[in-house]
Amino acid sequence: MPTKQYVYSFSEWKGLGKDLLWWKWANLAEMVSLGMPIPDWFTITTETCDIFYKNNKTYPVEATEQIEAHLVELETKMGKKLGDANDPLLVSVRSGAAASLPGMMDTVLNLGLNDESVVWIATKTGNERFARDSYRRFIQMFGDVVMEVPHHDFEKALQGVKDKRGVKLDTELDTDALKEVVQNYKAVVQAAKGTSFPNDPRQQLKMAIDAVFGSRNNDRAIYYRKMNDIKGLLGTAVNVQSMVFGNMGETSGTGVCFSRNPATGENKFYGEFLMNAQGEDVVAGIRTPQTIDTLAGVMPECYDQLVEIYKRLEQHYHDMQDMEFTIQEGKLYMLQTRNGKRTGAAAVKIAVEMLAEGLIDEKTAVLRVAPNQLDELLHKQIDKAAKTNAELLTKGLPASPGAAVGQVVFNAQDAHNWNEDGKKVILVRLETSPEDIQGMAASQGILTARGGMTSHAAVVARWMGKCCVSGASEISVDEHTKTLTINGKVLNEGDIITLDGSTGEVFNGGLTVVDPELSGDFAKLMELADKYRTLKIRTNADTPRDTAQAKTFWAEGIGLCRTEHMFFAEDRILAMREMILADDVDGRKRALAKILPYQKGDFYELMKILEGLPVTIRFLDPPLHEFLPTEDKDIQALSAEMWISAEKIRERVEALHEFNPMLGHRGCRLAITYPEIAEMQTEAVISAACELKKEWIDARPEIMIPLVGFKSELDFNEQIVRRVAKETMAKYGIDVEYKFWTMIEVPRGAVTADEIAQTAEFFSFGTNDLTQMGLGFSRDDAGKFIKEYLEKNIFEKDPFQTIDEMGVGRLVRQAVEGWKATRPDIKLGVCWEHGWDPASIDFFHRIGLAYVSCSPYRVPIARLAAAHSALLN
Amino acid sequence: MPTKQYVYSFSEWKGLGKDLLWWKWANLAEMVSLGMPIPDWFTITTETCDIFYKNNKTYPVEATEQIEAHLVELETKMGKKLGDANDPLLVSVRSGAAASLPGMMDTVLNLGLNDESVVWIATKTGNERFARDSYRRFIQMFGDVVMEVPHHDFEKALQGVKDKRGVKLDTELDTDALKEVVQNYKAVVQAAKGTSFPNDPRQQLKMAIDAVFGSRNNDRAIYYRKMNDIKGLLGTAVNVQSMVFGNMGETSGTGVCFSRNPATGENKFYGEFLMNAQGEDVVAGIRTPQTIDTLAGVMPECYDQLVEIYKRLEQHYHDMQDMEFTIQEGKLYMLQTRNGKRTGAAAVKIAVEMLAEGLIDEKTAVLRVAPNQLDELLHKQIDKAAKTNAELLTKGLPASPGAAVGQVVFNAQDAHNWNEDGKKVILVRLETSPEDIQGMAASQGILTARGGMTSHAAVVARWMGKCCVSGASEISVDEHTKTLTINGKVLNEGDIITLDGSTGEVFNGGLTVVDPELSGDFAKLMELADKYRTLKIRTNADTPRDTAQAKTFWAEGIGLCRTEHMFFAEDRILAMREMILADDVDGRKRALAKILPYQKGDFYELMKILEGLPVTIRFLDPPLHEFLPTEDKDIQALSAEMWISAEKIRERVEALHEFNPMLGHRGCRLAITYPEIAEMQTEAVISAACELKKEWIDARPEIMIPLVGFKSELDFNEQIVRRVAKETMAKYGIDVEYKFWTMIEVPRGAVTADEIAQTAEFFSFGTNDLTQMGLGFSRDDAGKFIKEYLEKNIFEKDPFQTIDEMGVGRLVRQAVEGWKATRPDIKLGVCWEHGWDPASIDFFHRIGLAYVSCSPYRVPIARLAAAHSALLN
Repeated sequence: MPTKQYVYSFSEWKGLGKDLLWWKWANLAEMVSLGMPIPDWFTITTETCDIFYKNNKTYPVEATEQIEAHLVELETKMGKKLGDANDPLLVSVRSGAAASLPGMMDTVLNLGLNDESVVWIATKTGNERFARDSYRRFIQMFGDVVMEVPHHDFEKALQGVKDKRGVKLDTELDTDALKEVVQNYKAVVQAAKGTSFPNDPRQQLKMAIDAVFGSRNNDRAIYYRKMNDIKGLLGTAVNVQSMVFGNMGETSGTGVCFSRNPATGENKFYGEFLMNAQGEDVVAGIRTPQTIDTLAGVMPECYDQLVEIYKRLEQHYHDMQDMEFTIQEGKLYMLQTRNGKRTGAAAVKIAVEMLAEGLIDEKTAVLRVAPNQLDELLHKQIDKAAKTNAELLTKGLPASPGAAVGQVVFNAQDAHNWNEDGKKVILVRLETSPEDIQGMAASQGILTARGGMTSHAAVVARWMGKCCVSGASEISVDEHTKTLTINGKVLNEGDIITLDGSTGEVFNGGLTVVDPELSGDFAKLMELADKYRTLKIRTNADTPRDTAQAKTFWAEGIGLCRTEHMFFAEDRILAMREMILADDVDGRKRALAKILPYQKGDFYELMKILEGLPVTIRFLDPPLHEFLPTEDKDIQALSAEMWISAEKIRERVEALHEFNPMLGHRGCRLAITYPEIAEMQTEAVISAACELKKEWIDARPEIMIPLVGFKSELDFNEQIVRRVAKETMAKYGIDVEYKFWTMIEVPRGAVTADEIAQTAEFFSFGTNDLTQMGLGFSRDDAGKFIKEYLEKNIFEKDPFQTIDEMGVGRLVRQAVEGWKATRPDIKLGVCWEHGWDPASIDFFHRIGLAYVSCSPYRVPIARLAAAHSALLN
Repeated sequence: MPTKQYVYSFSEWKGLGKDLLWWKWANLAEMVSLGMPIPDWFTITTETCDIFYKNNKTYPVEATEQIEAHLVELETKMGKKLGDANDPLLVSVRSGAAASLPGMMDTVLNLGLNDESVVWIATKTGNERFARDSYRRFIQMFGDVVMEVPHHDFEKALQGVKDKRGVKLDTELDTDALKEVVQNYKAVVQAAKGTSFPNDPRQQLKMAIDAVFGSRNNDRAIYYRKMNDIKGLLGTAVNVQSMVFGNMGETSGTGVCFSRNPATGENKFYGEFLMNAQGEDVVAGIRTPQTIDTLAGVMPECYDQLVEIYKRLEQHYHDMQDMEFTIQEGKLYMLQTRNGKRTGAAAVKIAVEMLAEGLIDEKTAVLRVAPNQLDELLHKQIDKAAKTNAELLTKGLPASPGAAVGQVVFNAQDAHNWNEDGKKVILVRLETSPEDIQGMAASQGILTARGGMTSHAAVVARWMGKCCVSGASEISVDEHTKTLTINGKVLNEGDIITLDGSTGEVFNGGLTVVDPELSGDFAKLMELADKYRTLKIRTNADTPRDTAQAKTFWAEGIGLCRTEHMFFAEDRILAMREMILADDVDGRKRALAKILPYQKGDFYELMKILEGLPVTIRFLDPPLHEFLPTEDKDIQALSAEMWISAEKIRERVEALHEFNPMLGHRGCRLAITYPEIAEMQTEAVISAACELKKEWIDARPEIMIPLVGFKSELDFNEQIVRRVAKETMAKYGIDVEYKFWTMIEVPRGAVTADEIAQTAEFFSFGTNDLTQMGLGFSRDDAGKFIKEYLEKNIFEKDPFQTIDEMGVGRLVRQAVEGWKATRPDIKLGVCWEHGWDPASIDFFHRIGLAYVSCSPYRVPIARLAAAHSALLN
């Protein structure tokens, strides 16, 4: 029987199976197989670990022999010997389980250092302090993880030396001090373990290997495996790799490089390096690295080798590579390669160019760009250089992406007036309300002290495609004195600030902002996405501007037109208020008659822009009190304007007040109390369609009744809509093929979808309200505690950003099943915030919805996400 | 072949099958078979109607012959002839389909009246006006439903006579005027139909029979059958019955009687009658009827006959009978009998006594009392006599039953103070909030201008067993001037009013109020209910008073102890506020330490009262802002008391403000942010149980975590509870078998119950919140529109009173299924408002829950309802 193989060298790894490897070692092994220069290593198998446990923590003599043999082989290859006083071999020892187990021993670096070899390192690097510091770190690391000396014993020893020398920072310790630390550390080990720190590197190695095997069953590892349900691992492997140094003089160096530019995507070798330095020096930023191309002048051979390697790696991995290398005394070693992280712009460019180069196929190109990465491409951005020297005032939530510069104003009216005067403004509010909409539209960006990612300000801003930072809780806003205070700094009305809606940053003064470039690569990628996706993408829009914007992004219709926003414009809000304050049906009808031409005009415009595409019009949804003023001075002004006593207005405001407006008198419930509202809206929709048809323009209105929980509610609304539509078409003598839809957003509507489907022809999910009611979380209030839920791992994701598939998703699935039981052939849609989130789109794709609808600027993201889902499911 | 039988006399009915009969005719036929005197009638079969249709609206000559023969038989039996000028026979003609079809011809009365017979009636009754009025009504009714003369033609003719005589009301027309009306009516018929009104009674009868058959297929009847899905009816039958008159002189009379007293249940013949009168006279109240026993003196034979009849009928139907009778010239006729309606008290007494008499069995006795009827027995009531002369101020919603007299106060503090001074008060508020609880407890009753049957005031009042009228929308309350205005009438602080919480009435002044008597019959009925029910009944209680009260009603434990109410008492609210205003964990812990002894004391008391019975303690549920004052003066007072600046308090109030508190930071979410609250509550529960165990008293606490939507939320809470419970038990050295439960009240919790069941040992449904979130209806706001929903038939029942089985019920069923998938053996409970509603209890019984929990005063209702469900399912 041949002896079992306990130890493998890296060159034997190929084909051994990934369960033995980490990705990092797998990549290194693959590079080895490509003939690239990697510091040698060998691996002791997981099976050895298993045997170690089954044999009372010993392993067979054959294993020890094989370790020794491989160590000698390593020494031979590297031309160094472990513990040699002249040019010693140093190694790293790492655990190497198939699954990463944090809390287990990870790495011991510089194993092999001892009182002799440290001297050689000092001489060779010309940096004794570096050598001594490495040594004391080695003792501490080894003592801690291998010998299990309490961590704080070392800290205490270190502090003692620092106190004695009167210094505060580790970096202030000079060579002599570090020598003293090493002495004291050894004493600590002696005191704690009753044995001296091993000076013999072979003993160090044996101890380290045993410790790695032993760590497999320490408390933390057991707990971690249990928590993460990791079972059936044989054990851990141990990797022993020779160390290389970039700080061994002027023919040594270290660097990081990319096969293409990760910021722009340009197909040009990119990176930086430092001669006579360690990786840490690059990171620390004490010395300024040189760009990678200058390496050609310094060490042309190494440079050429590197170029050859990066090209082969890119060809091999079919993706842009991020590599680390070290040059030790003129010899190049690759330490790592991986697919490189990149900006959105770079991702698009690289994907499209690699496709053109034949390096990847179309599907791969589509999948190479994460949908969310497109976001940064679609909005203005603060110039990166400008940011570095700017004064950061505070950081809020990145509520709506883009950048904005403007003068601070504190209310919607001022925003409107200043904008009329040609000034650019940032609207700063405690929080926004529907009354602020015109002011928000007049602003460059919005900053609020309260509210989360899905607060009113955030939702409206995203849908307007406007930059917004919300929930900047360090800000205190005083609307009366028109000042805002951030950490003691006071800003006045008119002061200029800059918002970064993609990061939540708020800067003092005006920073340079750059426009997005929707290059040819972007268009190409979108074209590919459209080729592969099956889900249609509509937009949420209720103004001609948004509709036109969405059309440029190829939206396939309007999935949600929120008619209430049409009531807020200055010329309409008065009629709306008249309607609300009217004493009877006749009074309401008179007021509604004034609104009718506006609504009709709006619907006419939207359907005209989207000729032939469907336009889903949701009937009035918010509670009526949202349309009335609440501040005393506004009530007085309205009283004067409408010739109605302020008292009466106040009474009405009071009567309409609701404790939980989210669960109040809104949606289809409004039309049940005031059928005349639905009558007016039906007339407006159908008239607009008739007039377009008269002009031979194809109009496809879909009337959508919101907040339906009961079939009987929908039936009541249907009677109104059908009757008025019939009357209106008769008046025009024109037939319009309108649709009668509903929205499933109340949990009851979801669980009784089979019944509701008897009345509605189709429905669209309102996943925002469904999430609010299904989870019992008010969008406007939950921001405060959802943050904590995320921090405390109660939530993995914010359910207002990614649909809660296990909960709300079950309601959605039930609704789909119920609906199909009644109408087997029909497909369904979804609108609202979740409409653009890639993970949510994936869910909607999997359950077979027909379309999703999202705000105009999210349409491209949704298109790409839909393509991903089609390709990955 | 024998001739087909088209017509049956009443005596031939027995065994003909119920599909030919209405219940009324069935009862009459049954009385005939018992040999009781009923005015004779005969019936033309539904089959005749079918033939009528199949033969071009004619029927065979045999049918005509049989009708004539039965008519002659009827005339013979009654000793009168149709159309006779001397003692004429008059008949009623009615359609008689098996299913009631409103909109079809129902009844033509007094058929047989003509110009001759009317004279005899006038003479015989000595009331010519009555005779003439009967005649003109007959022409109008016959003309309308048989001859199809437009109704308004008659109205116009009548109005003409009224105008001519200058009178406004029909009753102001004298005999001459009525004669003129008859003439004009005949002219109307002549003009409309081109034929004169039939003076021949046999023609009248033929026309009426044809009209009844014909009406089977009029538009309204077809529509009605379609809407109600009534199919397969052969046609309609026609009943022809002789009329009898109680106003034919001093040996005639009419009356209504009950076999037992329907108000008290006393087993004594009860009723009233009027001599020489028609049924209408009794109803009109112009003459005062005599009690039935005096009939013995007036007409002893009739009285004896009636007594024999009522006794036989009760024996026959095994229930208390409600009968109508007429005496015509010394001869008694029974016109109707049916099971009599009765008060709750009567229902209980009759059921228990009939059981003792052997008239009914135990199960029937239990089913004889509607659970809701018990309500009136359990509360104080306004003396009926006192009500008749009282000044009714307004009517609100009957929010919590009972009666209350007291002086009006306008805030909780005054209620408290006045009560301390020994005054009885009624707390009048626009609406109540949790801060008012002490004031509510100090009041006799509560009156609010706003809020529905499930508003805060209503819920708290019911649970306190206190009378409450809510949503009295005609009231305007001015808390500053301490006045309330109702339809112009102003009441001041200190004025006395009386509330009837069972009807919603509000009276001026103090009315006499009587106490409930929970007699032996009540106890007996409850005992029977307990024998048959399988569902356990617990109570919602959080004070020793309520707990003791519920125990007297045999509650089987506490199903819901709302701990937040324990924080509102004056001595605790300050510590609670200190906790909320604290800057850090330590500050909060210091404040909580002050509350701990109170909570522990409360739990100790409750568990001691219910020794050995389970006590479910729900941890803090409402959002924290409910504990802070909002009015400026209260903030100032708090500021002074706590040495904290008013500004800081205001800031905290502001920061805690929520747009939709129902969906806000409450329930288990509180403990996630402030684990120290759950720690304190756990310590209080477990300490209390330990101390009881030390005294050898069995304590069975069940800790219930509210508002759980995610397993992860519950896990977080479980860690806290398990840890602190362990620590506390260790401190006492005593083991307590506490349970760890949750509440399913968030829709997500219902659909993911399978997951949540992995952590919780048991759960109780919170159907109130589940309804709010499942339907998207805020309890505090929905009152306004639910009323409209009921009026417009969008809802059949208020979903906050009876569980919405088709919607919320589906979520409940899903939760039960999910739970059982994880824990197959466990049964579940329900608490909250629906806990006492009989229809909801029936649902909970059917889906196999273990218990329901309701407010103390609803426990008997729930016990009886549970028995009904067990017997009927």
